[in-house]
Amino acid sequence: MLGGKLAERLAHDGALAGEEISRLVLADVAEPGRPSEARFDVEPVVADLAEEGVARDLVESRPDVVFHLAAVVSGAAEADFESGYRTNLDGTRALLESIRGIGDGYRPRVVFTSTIAVFGAPFPDVIGDDQCHTPLTSYGTQKAIAELLLSDYSRRGFLDGVGIRLPTICVRPGRPNQAASGFFSNIIREPLNGQEAVLPVPDETRHWHASPRSAVGFMLHAATLDTGVLGDRRCLTMPGVSVTVAEQIEALRRVAGDAAVRLIRREPDETIMRIVAGWPRDFDPRRALLLGFRADADFDEIVRVHIEDELGGRVLAAG
Amino acid sequence: MLGGKLAERLAHDGALAGEEISRLVLADVAEPGRPSEARFDVEPVVADLAEEGVARDLVESRPDVVFHLAAVVSGAAEADFESGYRTNLDGTRALLESIRGIGDGYRPRVVFTSTIAVFGAPFPDVIGDDQCHTPLTSYGTQKAIAELLLSDYSRRGFLDGVGIRLPTICVRPGRPNQAASGFFSNIIREPLNGQEAVLPVPDETRHWHASPRSAVGFMLHAATLDTGVLGDRRCLTMPGVSVTVAEQIEALRRVAGDAAVRLIRREPDETIMRIVAGWPRDFDPRRALLLGFRADADFDEIVRVHIEDELGGRVLAAG
Repeated sequence: MLGGKLAERLAHDGALAGEEISRLVLADVAEPGRPSEARFDVEPVVADLAEEGVARDLVESRPDVVFHLAAVVSGAAEADFESGYRTNLDGTRALLESIRGIGDGYRPRVVFTSTIAVFGAPFPDVIGDDQCHTPLTSYGTQKAIAELLLSDYSRRGFLDGVGIRLPTICVRPGRPNQAASGFFSNIIREPLNGQEAVLPVPDETRHWHASPRSAVGFMLHAATLDTGVLGDRRCLTMPGVSVTVAEQIEALRRVAGDAAVRLIRREPDETIMRIVAGWPRDFDPRRALLLGFRADADFDEIVRVHIEDELGGRVLAAG
Repeated sequence: MLGGKLAERLAHDGALAGEEISRLVLADVAEPGRPSEARFDVEPVVADLAEEGVARDLVESRPDVVFHLAAVVSGAAEADFESGYRTNLDGTRALLESIRGIGDGYRPRVVFTSTIAVFGAPFPDVIGDDQCHTPLTSYGTQKAIAELLLSDYSRRGFLDGVGIRLPTICVRPGRPNQAASGFFSNIIREPLNGQEAVLPVPDETRHWHASPRSAVGFMLHAATLDTGVLGDRRCLTMPGVSVTVAEQIEALRRVAGDAAVRLIRREPDETIMRIVAGWPRDFDPRRALLLGFRADADFDEIVRVHIEDELGGRVLAAG
């Protein structure tokens, strides 16, 4: 999802860090969609990084910037131990090794999307930049390992890496899915679409969010910032918006009215409540802010971004 | 070195956690020495864990306890990138995967020796249990990754892991070597042996030490403690003794007299000073202390342990 949005944005901008883009290779395990209007070569490739030789072929053309987003997501990595390690660890390592293998002074910028799931409870209410990595999922473990590899490969001069720990992406477009975090988006997206949504946790549940548009902005900023100021700490917690579910709902009310809010049905789910209790609620992402990363101003903006980017500015329930 | 001392101690005790030891397999890349007097089967094996099938063969007999100490050490892992990742990451992963592969309810205790090199400057003067991992060497990176794997495999129920971050081992027996940390031991061991030793850093340099005897004690305690109280945080900073070089020297003077101290020659080395400046100086290892891990009482004890365990209680320089 974010890869597609990033490609659209690159196609729209036509340039990165002031340099015209000449070619974009889009690699995914399924046929990647092409951006709608690009003034440069776009080459979609069906590729599994963990397969022998695939990463080597991909970096052979020596791209200046590599965005590495590919991942088996949280629930799937927990359900299938081997598949998660294969894609999230072996695939990432194969990519880094292929870049190192070129040598010859080749040292591309590598932007890696990590996750706040590298942190696991117990932690402070507001998590600082020095919080230790204590993942409570295999997904979080694999991302934490990838962060360590990215930092070491950067320190050794094999590549120029920046790891960005994304907040939970909200509002996630598409249909409701089985992810435990899905309701954070469902309770906004579905009502805006005139549909009912289920809220499985109490209204006071606090979490950390960023819009898809902000996430793309983080990736572009990570691709262009001066990494000299990062030192050896290459991985950063991205800024976001910390709100309770109640605050999410009030934002929805302000943007789309009472009719939208009435479509949220409270249906407490003990399992989801227990999972969410282990998640971070708030961060103090000082380093990222100092380095110029910018999140949405507040949750109202997150709702408005969804309406602009996904609904063509039109809200059904409010009509 | 620590593996040999652990084997001697197991041979001496004949039991672990109140259970008689029936068999000890000693695996190393070079022919491992046998403990001098063991009442149980001892099987030395020359084995490279990173080689296909080797780890599987080693765990086939389903040992109740696995001590995993093997590593390409700091300087070597920095000098040879591939060899460090092969042994320290791939070898460790092969071991964990082999244990997981047995399945069938097999869930051994796995004691993994990690290192304070998972931490890298800048950090506070006294490092707490929640300090983030920011290794500044490939060795530290590989150990930090192994910690993450050990925790995830434990959380998933494939094994029952305990990772222990050892302080710098002092006094390290044997001859002076090229390790940047070697002088911490050299300035004690060599004078006790009537030999000169070079001190390349200022006297106020502070560092974190434990005797080889304490390190063996940590491993045995990690093999027997109730891991139920660890929760999902399976890796612990071990206690140690934080002293300046000046305090090391005063301990040497108290134990072995002025004649020993006069054998220390100050020869500042900018390179070593720069490396050591990035190392931890002191820890507050609360969790390990609560769990019953015990270090040497002070640096005097560290010196005495060396004299007892390595010199048969006899000091040359003081004679």
